[in-house]
Amino acid sequence: MRILIVNVNTTESMTEGIARAAREAASAGTEIIALTPTFGAESCEGNVESYLAALGVMDAVMKYPGEFDAVVQAGYGEHGREGLQELLDVPVIDITEAGAALAMFLGHRYAVVTTLDRTVPLIEDRLLLAGLNTHCTSVRASGMAVLELENQPERAVEAIADQAAEAVERDRAEAIVLGCGGMADLKQVIVERCDVPVVDGVTAAVKLAESLVGLGLKTSKVRTYAPARPKQLSGWPFSAA
Amino acid sequence: MRILIVNVNTTESMTEGIARAAREAASAGTEIIALTPTFGAESCEGNVESYLAALGVMDAVMKYPGEFDAVVQAGYGEHGREGLQELLDVPVIDITEAGAALAMFLGHRYAVVTTLDRTVPLIEDRLLLAGLNTHCTSVRASGMAVLELENQPERAVEAIADQAAEAVERDRAEAIVLGCGGMADLKQVIVERCDVPVVDGVTAAVKLAESLVGLGLKTSKVRTYAPARPKQLSGWPFSAA
Amino acid sequence: MRILIVNVNTTESMTEGIARAAREAASAGTEIIALTPTFGAESCEGNVESYLAALGVMDAVMKYPGEFDAVVQAGYGEHGREGLQELLDVPVIDITEAGAALAMFLGHRYAVVTTLDRTVPLIEDRLLLAGLNTHCTSVRASGMAVLELENQPERAVEAIADQAAEAVERDRAEAIVLGCGGMADLKQVIVERCDVPVVDGVTAAVKLAESLVGLGLKTSKVRTYAPARPKQLSGWPFSAA
Amino acid sequence: MRILIVNVNTTESMTEGIARAAREAASAGTEIIALTPTFGAESCEGNVESYLAALGVMDAVMKYPGEFDAVVQAGYGEHGREGLQELLDVPVIDITEAGAALAMFLGHRYAVVTTLDRTVPLIEDRLLLAGLNTHCTSVRASGMAVLELENQPERAVEAIADQAAEAVERDRAEAIVLGCGGMADLKQVIVERCDVPVVDGVTAAVKLAESLVGLGLKTSKVRTYAPARPKQLSGWPFSAA
Amino acid sequence: MRILIVNVNTTESMTEGIARAAREAASAGTEIIALTPTFGAESCEGNVESYLAALGVMDAVMKYPGEFDAVVQAGYGEHGREGLQELLDVPVIDITEAGAALAMFLGHRYAVVTTLDRTVPLIEDRLLLAGLNTHCTSVRASGMAVLELENQPERAVEAIADQAAEAVERDRAEAIVLGCGGMADLKQVIVERCDVPVVDGVTAAVKLAESLVGLGLKTSKVRTYAPARPKQLSGWPFSAA
Amino acid sequence: MRILIVNVNTTESMTEGIARAAREAASAGTEIIALTPTFGAESCEGNVESYLAALGVMDAVMKYPGEFDAVVQAGYGEHGREGLQELLDVPVIDITEAGAALAMFLGHRYAVVTTLDRTVPLIEDRLLLAGLNTHCTSVRASGMAVLELENQPERAVEAIADQAAEAVERDRAEAIVLGCGGMADLKQVIVERCDVPVVDGVTAAVKLAESLVGLGLKTSKVRTYAPARPKQLSGWPFSAA
Repeated sequence: MRILIVNVNTTESMTEGIARAAREAASAGTEIIALTPTFGAESCEGNVESYLAALGVMDAVMKYPGEFDAVVQAGYGEHGREGLQELLDVPVIDITEAGAALAMFLGHRYAVVTTLDRTVPLIEDRLLLAGLNTHCTSVRASGMAVLELENQPERAVEAIADQAAEAVERDRAEAIVLGCGGMADLKQVIVERCDVPVVDGVTAAVKLAESLVGLGLKTSKVRTYAPARPKQLSGWPFSAA
Repeated sequence: MRILIVNVNTTESMTEGIARAAREAASAGTEIIALTPTFGAESCEGNVESYLAALGVMDAVMKYPGEFDAVVQAGYGEHGREGLQELLDVPVIDITEAGAALAMFLGHRYAVVTTLDRTVPLIEDRLLLAGLNTHCTSVRASGMAVLELENQPERAVEAIADQAAEAVERDRAEAIVLGCGGMADLKQVIVERCDVPVVDGVTAAVKLAESLVGLGLKTSKVRTYAPARPKQLSGWPFSAA
Repeated sequence: MRILIVNVNTTESMTEGIARAAREAASAGTEIIALTPTFGAESCEGNVESYLAALGVMDAVMKYPGEFDAVVQAGYGEHGREGLQELLDVPVIDITEAGAALAMFLGHRYAVVTTLDRTVPLIEDRLLLAGLNTHCTSVRASGMAVLELENQPERAVEAIADQAAEAVERDRAEAIVLGCGGMADLKQVIVERCDVPVVDGVTAAVKLAESLVGLGLKTSKVRTYAPARPKQLSGWPFSAA
Repeated sequence: MRILIVNVNTTESMTEGIARAAREAASAGTEIIALTPTFGAESCEGNVESYLAALGVMDAVMKYPGEFDAVVQAGYGEHGREGLQELLDVPVIDITEAGAALAMFLGHRYAVVTTLDRTVPLIEDRLLLAGLNTHCTSVRASGMAVLELENQPERAVEAIADQAAEAVERDRAEAIVLGCGGMADLKQVIVERCDVPVVDGVTAAVKLAESLVGLGLKTSKVRTYAPARPKQLSGWPFSAA
Repeated sequence: MRILIVNVNTTESMTEGIARAAREAASAGTEIIALTPTFGAESCEGNVESYLAALGVMDAVMKYPGEFDAVVQAGYGEHGREGLQELLDVPVIDITEAGAALAMFLGHRYAVVTTLDRTVPLIEDRLLLAGLNTHCTSVRASGMAVLELENQPERAVEAIADQAAEAVERDRAEAIVLGCGGMADLKQVIVERCDVPVVDGVTAAVKLAESLVGLGLKTSKVRTYAPARPKQLSGWPFSAA
Repeated sequence: MRILIVNVNTTESMTEGIARAAREAASAGTEIIALTPTFGAESCEGNVESYLAALGVMDAVMKYPGEFDAVVQAGYGEHGREGLQELLDVPVIDITEAGAALAMFLGHRYAVVTTLDRTVPLIEDRLLLAGLNTHCTSVRASGMAVLELENQPERAVEAIADQAAEAVERDRAEAIVLGCGGMADLKQVIVERCDVPVVDGVTAAVKLAESLVGLGLKTSKVRTYAPARPKQLSGWPFSAA
């Protein structure tokens, strides 16, 4: 099977990191195609960037010329998943939801550790909408910006592990979800420090996508994600502009 | 004061209707500037159209050359309000939330009557996110498409009034919110038929915008809607592309 | 238009302060009539006082000989709004709800800063009943009694600003609601200290009342606030006793 | 022990019915003193009457010259219990809450069957405030006014049993709470018709009051129900006016 | 009337303590029969032990040869109450729920103080299922194991009182529920230290059982607790194995 | 990898059906070992049977002599998953939760269609505890007993498909979860009739187990599912009895 995994920002090196993590998680026989939007922000850390990412991801998927069996949207707390579900019949998995859904099988409560404080409400909102929030005990910010994860990996690991430890001790989290598409490499350090399961959204999403495809399950088309009604659109798809 | 009111679709006649309703509601001394996005869908009735509207509205506001004191986003159940709040210091009012907020002062429970069944979950999601859902007893669809409201006004009135009556009788609604930017003209008929207060989102939003401006209140900039961090964006603002 | 604004306690100087704040917020053409109950407590800081205020306010409104277009109940966290809605057709706005409703348009979460610890549960209960609690991150007490706000304004400002700052930092509030009818004067200091929007319930209520009146909206009479059934009452209206 | 049970309306015959039901439920050694407010409505079916009842009950209790061990407020969905708790150290039981609390031990979900449709929201609000609403599947109105329960007992039984049957069948209730102080006599008929446990609030409250007194438990005085601060009150207690 | 009170663990000395507390609380004329399961754990502090207790309690009740009017399950946060309700017509009271239900009549919020940290989620889950969680402000662990309550009573009292004090001060609890079947003796110390009502689940359950029996109320048999369908069971009742 | 899948009842033919469905869903390289409890009920349709199943499943797993990588508990709405999580380090998946978790990725709301009406509350309770209930629009009973699914497959298909259709139309479900371990074969018929995705819990659980194992994720051991404290147990493990 072929899974498209789409970065939400335009930074190619992050796409590569996401692809690497996805491929390590993928089963034999699963081909991972990683896409980078042709427009948007170099990193998503706010509302405008998130809305722009929603369209950038849809655009990248619509432009992809080949066939595919599932799509993973690889941004934590970003908009857009519902649009992809409307556009496509194949399963669509957002890594925010994937990480939360798997963490719920591992402990009584989970916490998310993310990048900047300003992204916390966006993540909370996405978990609320997805109905995955009741077992989320906290969303904590490490204070590291998305691109700092790449540039200052050691400081990032420490800052994130600190918050994970606080989440376990104070917020009573029993599992940690890494709240950023580019955090997969940090997993092992946090496991060692906190001794709780650590879920990375990208790899969780790959597995959930494989699961749905393997079971022959597709996006429901009866109401919320029914195909758009035929109508005049201008400026979309961007690829045609 | 000057209020920008931005249609979420590209249909100019709807923008005009919205402007007309807004002007009738506005106080003396309030100037209403109605904007139409230069890209997007001719009507918003789904997820992709809604995400496209989010950017279309932001783009229209960013391109507007003059000064203004508040922005009203005139689409029911659409995305984008958070982006505007991040971009701007002035108050931003979404008509979905405006209608609900005022209805809550008029009766113990309110219902929304909207266009197509497929838009109901989008409205429910926006009310949930805004924290205005607990007194919403139902979101009902009339089965009329957005553009049919213009083309078949008589059938529209009847279909919407039918649902409003059901909401009052079966769902125990005590106030009705009109769930579409283009429904302001229907208000009187429904009031007469159901004998409950009927709130139109556009006019509610104008009044709330005037209220916030009048009180000197602006969008909070401490976390969720703090100005975006300086970073490289491509494809935005579209006006510059 | 004429708005009655009714203090919940019997302290005339507080009524005057409320009236002053209301008039500053009112639009040209809005007449503010401030009423003081003829019975009740000199300040409301508990359950009995709150229930007494409910009747005192209703009594004051029923005794008012003139016509009016809306009523504002100027007590934070007090009982009685539902009774006024049953008695009257015109809109009724409680300042507790007005402050919360406007704050929700300004930030992702709001906090209330009030007077004594013992009033916190009363405020929480009113926000819960009004369905305005989900975005309320905390109700904090400054420890200042209602009448101390008048007598010790400097200490009050500091104590309230301290709690507002804590709410922003620890509770992640992005807007502050002043949780007392007599706090309007403190607004500017807190804005300066915390750099978040600060909403005063009295002025918020005046604007909401003007909005509803301006839109021709009245209290729903279909169920909860339908006129009372004709029956024998003793001891009411007190004015007739 | 001595329990004061206070009717919320001024109809003596209802007080007598309540007293009779209470005495049948009371243990040997429990003395039931039934009080009727000296002011208020002949029956409580709305917001003003409910607020008036709150004060009428407090007034009746404050005027009672003897000692007592607990107070039961015998009105379904009425205001005032918090005021009594503030005034008194002894336990205070509202029959709305008593009926719900016991019903929760008998089945997975319970329903309330009450008098008029207009009182449903008041009951829902009281259950919400008390935190007893999550297992309440519905509050249904029989359409019978409070005083009709006395005047038309046969029609009342039928109307109430009809709603109870609907609640069991459609709303999946497994226990029924009688939602009025004057319904205790109807219990047996509904049990026979619906074959589910039927809880009467008055008798439930007597047992709960006896339980708390028997365990030496009293109302908490640390915050919400702490004694009122010393201050000037006018018009209260009414008995002194 | 005769009430069976069943310990959830196999430690006879704890059964005796429970019986002693129950008898002190019981009314004249109530006979308390205390049962100890013939299998299970010497104390319940986890999931397996809790599930084992569920069957142990059911087995003990089924083996009891005499007649009885109600059953109390004397374990805090343990499984099994629903099974007893299915097996029996008489009322079944779990002490977790009994303590919470009575505490809700005494203060605006209550807290539970229990033994080990690992049992906190089990208690939270039981309160959630019972619909008694919304007024529970916290479940706090003292760090004392169940059997240490017997062996180190002085240390236990101190550790539990510390947590109760924290609950009152930080979590805003106004009443404390003792979260273990063997804590009844600690009640007085905590009352003295914290000056809030302290509810012991065992004694609360006895009173609630007496109340339900006194009112002639039995477990509903319409759906959730209907008698089991006739079918082949192996290994049950264990007493017959 | 090796996955143990444990039936909750003692009917071998159902175990075989479960195993067959699990094997069809399993990836190449996944070995499915299906276990039948040696004690319990021939089908689980109530509380006692469910508690008995909890122990029967734990017993079967503890007796299994080989190594394994994950456990699936194949009963819909049954107790016991938390016990397995405490006993084991490997991931434990309950099919109730697995079906719900995957359905949430496919549509905005899902419904469960199960066997008998009496099992509905048990399923609702398990979904509530798991935090997977907010997107569940209804749990509907087909009226078919568990063993009738085997004996009367045609009638079962029709009854279940009828309820699925009602769920889609009336309850606004967009995906259906089959609420019984023995329903996997019915999937295709319901898909054809309702045109929505239909999720079978057994196959969903296999995929989720494979996912967690593939990602190296294990059950958290920090609090709720920490290994039991060393203590005296009698009657357990039953296998040793």
